[in-house]
Amino acid sequence: MKSDKISESTTNRLSIYLRCLKAVAASGATTVSSKALADDFHLNSAQMRKDLAYFGEFGVRGLGYSVDTLCDHLTKILGLDKEHRVAIMGAGRLGTALADYYGFRRANFTVTALFDNDREKIGTRIGEVKVLDAKNFAATVKRDNIELAVIAVPASCAQMVFEDIVAAGIKAVLNFAPAALRKSSSDVKLKTVDLTTSLESLSFFLAQPAKQNSTNRKRKTKGGRNTAK
Amino acid sequence: MKSDKISESTTNRLSIYLRCLKAVAASGATTVSSKALADDFHLNSAQMRKDLAYFGEFGVRGLGYSVDTLCDHLTKILGLDKEHRVAIMGAGRLGTALADYYGFRRANFTVTALFDNDREKIGTRIGEVKVLDAKNFAATVKRDNIELAVIAVPASCAQMVFEDIVAAGIKAVLNFAPAALRKSSSDVKLKTVDLTTSLESLSFFLAQPAKQNSTNRKRKTKGGRNTAK
Repeated sequence: MKSDKISESTTNRLSIYLRCLKAVAASGATTVSSKALADDFHLNSAQMRKDLAYFGEFGVRGLGYSVDTLCDHLTKILGLDKEHRVAIMGAGRLGTALADYYGFRRANFTVTALFDNDREKIGTRIGEVKVLDAKNFAATVKRDNIELAVIAVPASCAQMVFEDIVAAGIKAVLNFAPAALRKSSSDVKLKTVDLTTSLESLSFFLAQPAKQNSTNRKRKTKGGRNTAK
Repeated sequence: MKSDKISESTTNRLSIYLRCLKAVAASGATTVSSKALADDFHLNSAQMRKDLAYFGEFGVRGLGYSVDTLCDHLTKILGLDKEHRVAIMGAGRLGTALADYYGFRRANFTVTALFDNDREKIGTRIGEVKVLDAKNFAATVKRDNIELAVIAVPASCAQMVFEDIVAAGIKAVLNFAPAALRKSSSDVKLKTVDLTTSLESLSFFLAQPAKQNSTNRKRKTKGGRNTAK
């Protein structure tokens, strides 16, 4: 497997293929053609064949892909066959919502602890996850082999918390704080989930007159690219 | 203002420029050059000048942009000068976390109600926001002029809730459920915040040997494109 030249948009697509294949598996099918996959899930079939061919020959001519085999391969390629241990920084509403988030378990991420510096929260539990004192973060990361940290603190302290995370040796960070974090080390992978951009794009849509929204729609369904000129 | 041909990636960039300009304004500066903006916030200055020129001439040669004027224009273009009223579907941990989310207020979105069908939750309050009976959703949308709905229910009932939202006449939907929703009407704007893809791309990163991550890093800092071939 040549996995050393893979862009983030490729891993995003692999992640989508895996989800689609799991839906196919759940429906009971054991093989699926790239055309059926593409049609059912609105994927680009040429792109998909190219992406998958890159990782080896999974398709059988005339039969399509073996659903289970391809699921297994994608799971391995994406590193989802191994458990990754997660710490959540901030035991506010968002942090506690995330501690409970099914998507983590599905991606084989185990939330081992929430960290906060609020005395009232330290020692409490969210489901099975304990809220620990933020002071003990670095020691807990070492002891529990935590590989990923989630930032769910207010924007005003997100940079400080991010620096603590990096100092503790964590290499993968998922940030929910609406803050542009500065990385001092480039071998740390930082993903920001940016709700503001999603909201503002919805606001833009709502601000347009109804006629324009329907014009855009027509242009899109014709397959034209809907870009600023 | 020619706003009829603007792609989503353009509105995403405008949204980022606005955030950067607000940071500049907060620092007390009244003008800023495109180069300084680009350098400070890691933006593409040629792209930015092109995006902004499209909406009119905001720059003054030798001085750069007037921070306040450009902020005002971007705010209007993005529709952030008008209040939009929001309903959140699902008063679980995620829904209640979102009811409290500062980003909504900042984008001029007002959460007017949470909806749930759990008798124990109906009638309670999250801060100033009341949990209402999901049965009364359509009537409340009309009465309160709700324009946007947020889906924060489990994946298994997300499609059903989405259809109720569309039936109530709402045109903009932000979906947090890990489900691929099918749209029956194409004049509805649906944005899905997909944590699974973010998580799986972090998992892919963690699954790579340390050496490769650092190779990728070197390639990236040289400005080379890091794509699958």
